[in-house]
Amino acid sequence: MSKIPDIIPDFSKSEEGLIPAVAQDAATGDILMLAYVNQAAWDETLKSGRACYWSRSRSKLWKKGEESGNWQEIKEILVDCDGDSIIYKIEQIGGIACHTGRRSCFYNKYEDGGFSVNSKPLIDPDELYKK
Amino acid sequence: MSKIPDIIPDFSKSEEGLIPAVAQDAATGDILMLAYVNQAAWDETLKSGRACYWSRSRSKLWKKGEESGNWQEIKEILVDCDGDSIIYKIEQIGGIACHTGRRSCFYNKYEDGGFSVNSKPLIDPDELYKK
Repeated sequence: MSKIPDIIPDFSKSEEGLIPAVAQDAATGDILMLAYVNQAAWDETLKSGRACYWSRSRSKLWKKGEESGNWQEIKEILVDCDGDSIIYKIEQIGGIACHTGRRSCFYNKYEDGGFSVNSKPLIDPDELYKK
Repeated sequence: MSKIPDIIPDFSKSEEGLIPAVAQDAATGDILMLAYVNQAAWDETLKSGRACYWSRSRSKLWKKGEESGNWQEIKEILVDCDGDSIIYKIEQIGGIACHTGRRSCFYNKYEDGGFSVNSKPLIDPDELYKK
């Protein structure tokens, strides 16, 4: 029987101190994106009540919504049995989580040996980042 | 505007060739677990129609359910905008995804500065792996 790990989330599980966090729409259950969190991003999320990640490409804290205005208000946080994955149940302000202007980043659907795109951008990405 | 990446999923995004895959209950939307997939696990998933992962701890293909009987039948597969995260929408055979005997691995709930356990095992883990 497992008990709560002494330290959760356990950022030591990866060399870079990063573990994946899934942003899930708290109302619909839809998965909107997956990004990475380190200790600093975790602390900022708890402090602000808004989802914060670590941007691997920019090597800096990524307060989701800082540029686009599309914040993710935290409704619930869950951590898995091993302490190395996180779910942020969120309300997606503005309704758009993806940098392409789509609601969700998961729009490439596998079917019959190939991929198709299953949703359209709700806004032009250039428009999104003018906010 | 983003187009479908030339190769999705793109396993080259990580040094180990592993990207995260979220197993989501296709009927309820609940997230049951998060594990990792490499090219071999991906190929096996497509071939078998059952979720296959790469076990980082055992360094081998992990045909989920092989020991417990709790297979994950693939209903839909989605890949994100960057091609480096996967959703397996599944039917969880036996109703238990977690090695602790719980339905979901995400049972540590953060609240008021600490964690509590929000679900009970449906079966003793020792029982689970006797199957």
